[in-house]
Amino acid sequence: MSAYEVISGGITAPKGYRASGVQAGIKYPRPDMAMIVSDKAAVIAGTFTRNKIQGAHIKFCRERLIARKAQAIVVNSGCANACVGTQGLLDARKMAKLTAASLGINEKYVFVCSTGTIGIPLPMDKIETGIAAAAESLSSDGGNLAAKAIMTTDTVDKQFAVECKINGIPVKIGGMAKGAGMIEPNMATMLAFMTTDAAVEAKSLQTCLSDAVAESFNRISVDGDQSCNDTVLFMANGCAGNTTLDVKHPEWSIFRDAVGAVAKELALKVVRDGEGATKFVTVTVCGAVSNTQARMAARAIANSLLVKTSWFGGDPNWGRIIDAIGYSGAEVIEDRVNISFDELMAVKGGKKSPNVSIEDMENVIAKKSFAIEVNLNLGKGKDIVYTCDCSEEYVKINAEYMT
Amino acid sequence: MSAYEVISGGITAPKGYRASGVQAGIKYPRPDMAMIVSDKAAVIAGTFTRNKIQGAHIKFCRERLIARKAQAIVVNSGCANACVGTQGLLDARKMAKLTAASLGINEKYVFVCSTGTIGIPLPMDKIETGIAAAAESLSSDGGNLAAKAIMTTDTVDKQFAVECKINGIPVKIGGMAKGAGMIEPNMATMLAFMTTDAAVEAKSLQTCLSDAVAESFNRISVDGDQSCNDTVLFMANGCAGNTTLDVKHPEWSIFRDAVGAVAKELALKVVRDGEGATKFVTVTVCGAVSNTQARMAARAIANSLLVKTSWFGGDPNWGRIIDAIGYSGAEVIEDRVNISFDELMAVKGGKKSPNVSIEDMENVIAKKSFAIEVNLNLGKGKDIVYTCDCSEEYVKINAEYMT
Repeated sequence: MSAYEVISGGITAPKGYRASGVQAGIKYPRPDMAMIVSDKAAVIAGTFTRNKIQGAHIKFCRERLIARKAQAIVVNSGCANACVGTQGLLDARKMAKLTAASLGINEKYVFVCSTGTIGIPLPMDKIETGIAAAAESLSSDGGNLAAKAIMTTDTVDKQFAVECKINGIPVKIGGMAKGAGMIEPNMATMLAFMTTDAAVEAKSLQTCLSDAVAESFNRISVDGDQSCNDTVLFMANGCAGNTTLDVKHPEWSIFRDAVGAVAKELALKVVRDGEGATKFVTVTVCGAVSNTQARMAARAIANSLLVKTSWFGGDPNWGRIIDAIGYSGAEVIEDRVNISFDELMAVKGGKKSPNVSIEDMENVIAKKSFAIEVNLNLGKGKDIVYTCDCSEEYVKINAEYMT
Repeated sequence: MSAYEVISGGITAPKGYRASGVQAGIKYPRPDMAMIVSDKAAVIAGTFTRNKIQGAHIKFCRERLIARKAQAIVVNSGCANACVGTQGLLDARKMAKLTAASLGINEKYVFVCSTGTIGIPLPMDKIETGIAAAAESLSSDGGNLAAKAIMTTDTVDKQFAVECKINGIPVKIGGMAKGAGMIEPNMATMLAFMTTDAAVEAKSLQTCLSDAVAESFNRISVDGDQSCNDTVLFMANGCAGNTTLDVKHPEWSIFRDAVGAVAKELALKVVRDGEGATKFVTVTVCGAVSNTQARMAARAIANSLLVKTSWFGGDPNWGRIIDAIGYSGAEVIEDRVNISFDELMAVKGGKKSPNVSIEDMENVIAKKSFAIEVNLNLGKGKDIVYTCDCSEEYVKINAEYMT
């Protein structure tokens, strides 16, 4: 039994946060700028893409994160502010200054994120107007509008919130995320923002977030393309009134699990909204020589275009799965490999189980959500990746998404 | 100027070879078994997939290759004879025995290859009938039929032949290949067969083939999925009457270049016939810290689904290219990166060149064949990958290719 309950609302579910989403007209005729503001300066944690090419806001946020203090986050979609030379960092700094001025807060407490097309400079006139409008329309139930304003190719907004009790005091954690393409589990391949009204010691908050990301955003894959703008930020403002939490607190695990639940649910929402995706697939590899090797095998399966298209076609093509394991770099001995589709052990000892029919397998693959479990029977290494199929629609979306 | 000329014919262009292609009815109602036979025992070289899961014929051929002698190759399409347990090797051996018996040759001189669906046992009754028919219909101009019989999702057969002179004696090299999907450059991701009437010392023949494969079949990519059945075999029967060639022969380079030309042309034919492909793209990365890093960056670009779909959409989306370089693992400093589309330097110092318009770039990407050249400006490492775009048709083909 989990020690938290799901509540309504996203990033504005916790106490002391306001948010907004407005239309600045950066690329699309729809809301494209979001703002999240805490009533008082909060502690902040963050994780960022490991891509060596990074959007300007990554460098900006990394520098800010050293002090671990934040009061506002401003986000634009439609333009990644990446690969635009030195102008990128100047524009990120200007966004922070404009936001601070419009809110009357310390400029050093503003974080900035951008997502969208790479290689195009930010239209700063539109951004400036957007920031003013976003600051004016902040609301304690604005999480919904903010979640819509950070979308790019997403078809639905992604929000989640939970409540748990720390020493009898209700503590809330909320979050929102965007992402549907360029999703590969090596850091959080999208933008996600989380808030809590708990008081949390800064380093413990970072530990909590890093652990949650490892089990959520770092376990998802849509297309194997790792973005250069991935960012997860998590603010804790202490408005709940609890005594400050840290990793040694007797009820730390309650908080940690609740944060993990929010991160995981947001991550799964990203996969379920994967560009053109029609099926949600959980890929587990166990029995590997090490966890690292299990991860290599699970990701090779999750990122194989041939495997993903076979799922889309409703074909239980386990040959493509074992082929992907073979080139993943993980140790594998063919005649030890078992592969299950849900509870059905389709492959035993490297070949098709004689008592499982293709029709039985097809019935599993026909489902909207199913699990592939591979046992390499070589050791105790295990890993899980959450992924989706690849449809003609994915190609259509990404062929038509013009620069 | 090259020291060889292109001639007509494929694997039966060199002297002393006969071939055939017949319909055994393994999976499709079309020719699906091929045989290549040399009039006399030949020297043979081979290279195989590095996938850890391997079709039964790979183990069989590797063992045979130790003696480096061959007189016949029998090939079936429609069934990979992979992941079928111990039956696989027994069936491969039986194919060799049946072939030897039907030809009246030494059983140890027969090589066997299979390609097609993974996980299904060979229908040995049909294979037996097919082998008898193939042996009966051998012909010195049968290369064309053989090339058609090894096709799976290929839309065209792939053949090429050249002639060069060694010490004034005409020497011919011919070849055929199959492959359109599950193509990733880490060994030869398909089947290819080459023949020559030159007399060549065995180890030198292997060196020659390995070098040729490194520059051809190992430089192509369609979908990043490395097959478990990839094989290239190269027979040299000495029927041309030249004194035996080896790596120290004064005219070795003439022979080596001619072999390289056949391998490269066959490899490029595979990419041009890539499943659903509409564009042929040469990706060059130079200025990397090492050749290995150049290779990592070039392959990340060539295998990025987002890059491939942007090409299909006619979108010169260099942001996706630089993003792929960023996660490739290669060292990269953003503001040193140049990216050219053909002769057009679209990106200079990590951002869009101010004097190149999107329209200019679009005109390059609209072509059926173009080149992407990336200069990382960090060192002297260089590598080339030949690849294609990814269309909705690719997904359609692979969603519909049922087990």
